[in-house]
Amino acid sequence: MRIEVLNTGTELMLGNVVNTHLAAIAQALFPIGLRIERQTTVPDGEAIRDALRETFGRAEVVLVTGGLGPTTDDITRDITAELLGLTLEHDEEIMRHIVERFARRNLRMTDRVKLQALRPREATVLHNANGTAPGLYFPAMQEKNSPHIFLLPGPPRELLPMLREHVVPILAKLTPNSTAFEMRTFRVVGMGESAVEEMVGADLLAMDIEVGYCARPGEVDVRLIGGSALLDRAEALVRERLGASIFTADTSSLEQVVIETLTSRNASIATAESCTGGFIANKLTNVAGASRVFLAGYVTYANDAKVAALGVDTALIEKHGAVSEPVARAMAEGSVRASGSSFALATTGIAGPDGGSVEKPVGTVFIALAKRDANTVVQKHCFPTDRETFKNLVAQAALDLLLRTLDGRALPLENFSEGDGGCGVSAG
Amino acid sequence: MRIEVLNTGTELMLGNVVNTHLAAIAQALFPIGLRIERQTTVPDGEAIRDALRETFGRAEVVLVTGGLGPTTDDITRDITAELLGLTLEHDEEIMRHIVERFARRNLRMTDRVKLQALRPREATVLHNANGTAPGLYFPAMQEKNSPHIFLLPGPPRELLPMLREHVVPILAKLTPNSTAFEMRTFRVVGMGESAVEEMVGADLLAMDIEVGYCARPGEVDVRLIGGSALLDRAEALVRERLGASIFTADTSSLEQVVIETLTSRNASIATAESCTGGFIANKLTNVAGASRVFLAGYVTYANDAKVAALGVDTALIEKHGAVSEPVARAMAEGSVRASGSSFALATTGIAGPDGGSVEKPVGTVFIALAKRDANTVVQKHCFPTDRETFKNLVAQAALDLLLRTLDGRALPLENFSEGDGGCGVSAG
Repeated sequence: MRIEVLNTGTELMLGNVVNTHLAAIAQALFPIGLRIERQTTVPDGEAIRDALRETFGRAEVVLVTGGLGPTTDDITRDITAELLGLTLEHDEEIMRHIVERFARRNLRMTDRVKLQALRPREATVLHNANGTAPGLYFPAMQEKNSPHIFLLPGPPRELLPMLREHVVPILAKLTPNSTAFEMRTFRVVGMGESAVEEMVGADLLAMDIEVGYCARPGEVDVRLIGGSALLDRAEALVRERLGASIFTADTSSLEQVVIETLTSRNASIATAESCTGGFIANKLTNVAGASRVFLAGYVTYANDAKVAALGVDTALIEKHGAVSEPVARAMAEGSVRASGSSFALATTGIAGPDGGSVEKPVGTVFIALAKRDANTVVQKHCFPTDRETFKNLVAQAALDLLLRTLDGRALPLENFSEGDGGCGVSAG
Repeated sequence: MRIEVLNTGTELMLGNVVNTHLAAIAQALFPIGLRIERQTTVPDGEAIRDALRETFGRAEVVLVTGGLGPTTDDITRDITAELLGLTLEHDEEIMRHIVERFARRNLRMTDRVKLQALRPREATVLHNANGTAPGLYFPAMQEKNSPHIFLLPGPPRELLPMLREHVVPILAKLTPNSTAFEMRTFRVVGMGESAVEEMVGADLLAMDIEVGYCARPGEVDVRLIGGSALLDRAEALVRERLGASIFTADTSSLEQVVIETLTSRNASIATAESCTGGFIANKLTNVAGASRVFLAGYVTYANDAKVAALGVDTALIEKHGAVSEPVARAMAEGSVRASGSSFALATTGIAGPDGGSVEKPVGTVFIALAKRDANTVVQKHCFPTDRETFKNLVAQAALDLLLRTLDGRALPLENFSEGDGGCGVSAG
């Protein structure tokens, strides 16, 4: 099934907005064995006509996003009907949905809003649960050599439910025989991308599967695509070689796994952050249900705050400096004491761009993990990079340290300063 | 100048990575008066050939990203040379750069790495300061009907400097007469997108300029494009109508403006966060130089932490609940006391998905601003949305409250619960 995506929107061409549609659509289609072969972006207006016409004869399915709204530039509906030789008619049921929506939200209706109730008789209406403009599905027309065309709204919170609830079921019916290859992804933390590839790459390439790697700050996905039996073999290999560094085989984030694990152990956590400035607390509290295990976070940026909030000894800071092994240790232990938590993570380091020295260059960081009734562990890393990537790398290292301790897995030896982004794909 | 972008990468087609190249390239080109007319994404491999050939005769410039690395799928260089009938040759200077780079990082070189030193004599080498593979520039060849072709690396931290330092200067020379329209963007906080448009939209549309709006959680950009004289008139209108809500006329974030303003006033800030869980502290400490004004953050998720860290009276929590006006006030004031800061922001609310009641539904939040020698201000909002958007909206409202107080501007009256994303563009 040759599938294309056509994104429309002048804001995309100006760089004001990053296009997340392709990724969202690809993720929705993969489970039913479908892949996108080409994606095109054009500005609002007449360029849409050329781009859509070009897909005739080339594609079997085209998913068009954007241009269904009420403003003068929203002409996707008109262009599509015209290319297919169909007539737009007022649809009373769409209109009723629009009127109800406006009434419910106490909004005044303008005349242009009515344009969104237009559709050709030949198109199927795709209900929009989160917005005004419905989607439209035009079945392929042999005499026009046209593909199956879906017109979909641009805002992600309207687009995504519509994809799941309406588009995927129609596509699944159109392609009953598609081979739904399986995709398995293993998330690895504490290793760089090239180290991961060196451990499994050659042997995976020798199998008849597709292998891909995707690096984000502090973690790497290993992605395997293929038939079930082959994937079982490949998975066994990946788990044998990388097992201690794999924190999930689904799409959970590290912080989700941490919160789940803490919850299942009836344990609790506090954070004492200097250089990460609340990033770790924020990550943990992004997870729904975090309040059951996350007790308190202390963002002790100033030295006085380290002393007052965490009881760090002033003499310790004067002797070793705020960025040091003893201060990281004291922050973590002070955090357990102050919050009554079973675990606490502390970070102190130099995020940059200023503040480095020969002895402690920008990127230096100490991460401490304190446990109520056990010894505190402190790790030193160096992540010389930009400020936000630095926070990301430190947070991943800290959460990895906690999760390995909770799971009783070996602590990471490697200082994974490599890889703040970049993706490689190779076919086996 | 008809410019196209061609992004290559199987990971983009699988939805594993969001494509940020288009936005980055568009932003780099706009200041020299250039816009992208079309963008296409194809997977690694032979699809690149078709997509590139199609641009011959249609485009004047094509920027290709990805596929320059050392793996078997990196064939952009070969395909381009072949389409243009050119021969790849080993380039000693590129090779020297690669060898030096590997030596400096203490990495072992593999044979495939050498492929990155290949280039046709006719192409200009674009130095890659942040990676191995250089970019290549192929001038348009009339006999082939080919556009000017730039082959650029995929990783953003290699691509972006190369764009700025090499691609933009070449394009600027190719188009000495392009009309560099000006773009002015005004960032508005504390108002929804439709409220913003209602105040300025009709009058801006009557001018001969291009107007666009872009909403992010808690803020809206008003974007004006056109000639200088017209923009002066439009800007005067925007400032007159929206002035009190505009926090910047450049691309600064709200937190950058807050840190700058605090620094210039010799003031300092602390945060006491419950429902935002460290998000505000993290935002503020993302700004380089934040350590001069950000003293401490308290993420007091548990009630005990509110009492212990901030001295909130237990009786107050019992009487009014943790999510209440008096507790927000006590948190902010306790934060000033504990940290010695001149200002403190506090948040307490219900992020959801659980924890709401009839009286205090999910989305309810109290934001308090305490000042060392003045009365504390508390605002109540309701942002019923997902967890991360909620944090975003609360943070924007809190920073807006602080910045308006610092600037002596009127406090916002509107409860801007509208607009968790979505962009509209209209032409005047």
